[in-house]
Amino acid sequence: MTGVRSSGPLIVSMGDPAGVGPEVIARGWDALRQQRQSVLHPSPLPFVVLGDAATLAKQGFPVEAVYGPHDAFQVFNRAIPVIDLPAPAPVVAGQPDPANAAAVADWIERGVDMILSGEGSGLVTAPIAKAPMYASGFRFPGHTEFIAELTADMPFIGTRGPVMMLTAQNLRACLVTIHVPIDQLPELVTADRVLRVARVVHESMKRDFGIAKPRLAMAALNPHAGEGGSIGLQEIEVLRPAAAQLRGEGIDISDPLPADTLFHEEARARFDAHICLYHDQALIPVKTLDFWGGVNATLGLPIVRTSPDHGTGFDIAGKGIARPDSFIAAVKLASEMAAKRATR
Amino acid sequence: MTGVRSSGPLIVSMGDPAGVGPEVIARGWDALRQQRQSVLHPSPLPFVVLGDAATLAKQGFPVEAVYGPHDAFQVFNRAIPVIDLPAPAPVVAGQPDPANAAAVADWIERGVDMILSGEGSGLVTAPIAKAPMYASGFRFPGHTEFIAELTADMPFIGTRGPVMMLTAQNLRACLVTIHVPIDQLPELVTADRVLRVARVVHESMKRDFGIAKPRLAMAALNPHAGEGGSIGLQEIEVLRPAAAQLRGEGIDISDPLPADTLFHEEARARFDAHICLYHDQALIPVKTLDFWGGVNATLGLPIVRTSPDHGTGFDIAGKGIARPDSFIAAVKLASEMAAKRATR
Repeated sequence: MTGVRSSGPLIVSMGDPAGVGPEVIARGWDALRQQRQSVLHPSPLPFVVLGDAATLAKQGFPVEAVYGPHDAFQVFNRAIPVIDLPAPAPVVAGQPDPANAAAVADWIERGVDMILSGEGSGLVTAPIAKAPMYASGFRFPGHTEFIAELTADMPFIGTRGPVMMLTAQNLRACLVTIHVPIDQLPELVTADRVLRVARVVHESMKRDFGIAKPRLAMAALNPHAGEGGSIGLQEIEVLRPAAAQLRGEGIDISDPLPADTLFHEEARARFDAHICLYHDQALIPVKTLDFWGGVNATLGLPIVRTSPDHGTGFDIAGKGIARPDSFIAAVKLASEMAAKRATR
Repeated sequence: MTGVRSSGPLIVSMGDPAGVGPEVIARGWDALRQQRQSVLHPSPLPFVVLGDAATLAKQGFPVEAVYGPHDAFQVFNRAIPVIDLPAPAPVVAGQPDPANAAAVADWIERGVDMILSGEGSGLVTAPIAKAPMYASGFRFPGHTEFIAELTADMPFIGTRGPVMMLTAQNLRACLVTIHVPIDQLPELVTADRVLRVARVVHESMKRDFGIAKPRLAMAALNPHAGEGGSIGLQEIEVLRPAAAQLRGEGIDISDPLPADTLFHEEARARFDAHICLYHDQALIPVKTLDFWGGVNATLGLPIVRTSPDHGTGFDIAGKGIARPDSFIAAVKLASEMAAKRATR
């Protein structure tokens, strides 16, 4: 049992309707429907949007209300399929309204439910903003933790996440810590966390990416991987023992390697995924390699979930300048991961 | 007075003769002499090597002993000009010998002297190794500090370095801290250090790169630049005030920006140099962008000094597989910087 198997489409939660979500979804749909060439196995999967249909209809592309996810297969080639769940307050681009926060959370929750029930095969979440959600009583740090909670009762084989993965080109960077101050890293980069993340990533590479023998890189915390202890001790005291333990479990993972030697083309080709210890260690190479097309995926959950690697962009929302690259990449990645899970 | 003006060639110190220095110098010479096309203004400048001529002669390219730097102009197109200062102990590739450490230090010191006297216009240092140098009594952390000491009595206008800069493509990443453990960053990233480094970089962009109004980026320490204080306080307490003070001095520098938004192509084009707070923050993007051709330059010294951005490579020395890309780039950068200084 590696999660629900489904022949359904992807589910897209609209995110904050006042942000760039509606426009990247609409422009992304326009690009994706043109790319779905194969008649027999159209790829990527079509999607259905959960959100405010009126807002989506303002983006300049055809929108069609549907009753359930499966309708997406008929509709997607001519219009954006949407299950209309109206926002209660007026939606003004660039001006988030806490009065809509409960609806935004509901779209996510319904999306998760549709995947747990087998109606959808993967969730792509458009961005939400913390401030209006918190103002309305939302109590999770973000999407990832909310979705982990919503799927907590679902059985899952293997070490459970969530683990955050960022992708760019052929780089899969997986994070041990995420939004924490740099001065908390020494206490947060523990053997337990590294072991858990590496196990989740190892299993996900097999389950979601079809890699029979995943090769993992472990990034070091200190410059030059601590240079034998002269520039920091975490490599000796925490990371090398963790790597040895993981190898003892049959996981192919490197000793902690100098982080600056892990992200050029030849290094990327040597590994299927990188275990990174802190936000910028992963995000600097991801965004240097592909600033617009990076994708955020959550590993180790009963459901497939990806999202564009950008925020709500309230400052540019409604101007028609938000780039859909990352949303498009997020749909493609979710589609690939869902296909791999379905064949296991 | 911005340092010595010279019409001399570049000076190359051989570094550890048992490392890859001799072979990257020789193979670099072969590439560079073919690239020096212009008859009137051959570029880059020729160089003369200070080191063990016998070791250089073993690399498969013609070597010619000369008496002074100026001979390089006549010799460079047909052979590698070398001022022979023999290593006292036998040189075996891959096996550093502390008995040669004093000679290695002497080559560097003579190189600096030749530039201070006007005979050479810039120094390119091939790599040295710490262990054999320390075993022989060398008391500096590395080249940079040694050269700073050797030039300490030389007058210099502006804030004095040394500041370490790493380059790749159009990225100039300048470091506030270098080889320190990550758990010391919060105490080492001080306003004083940031101010000093930014002033040195600002002046160097004008002096060494001919940029009239340099645009500097300041990288943040914490993810998302601390997100208003919710992910770390250094941006608010240290970095923003430092940036404001620098702007008050007429230096065009950004507020601390999320480090993952600073290194893609469009971001690089917006800035002439990046102020980075720690080793991997600078080195990850540099080596992701150009793993083999990065260059290390020392800013804020009375002399121009660059070096290849790699170590002695004892494990591969003598096998003919060390890539000269970084040495070649180091010669070109030193040549450009020397030319800018000469015209001021």
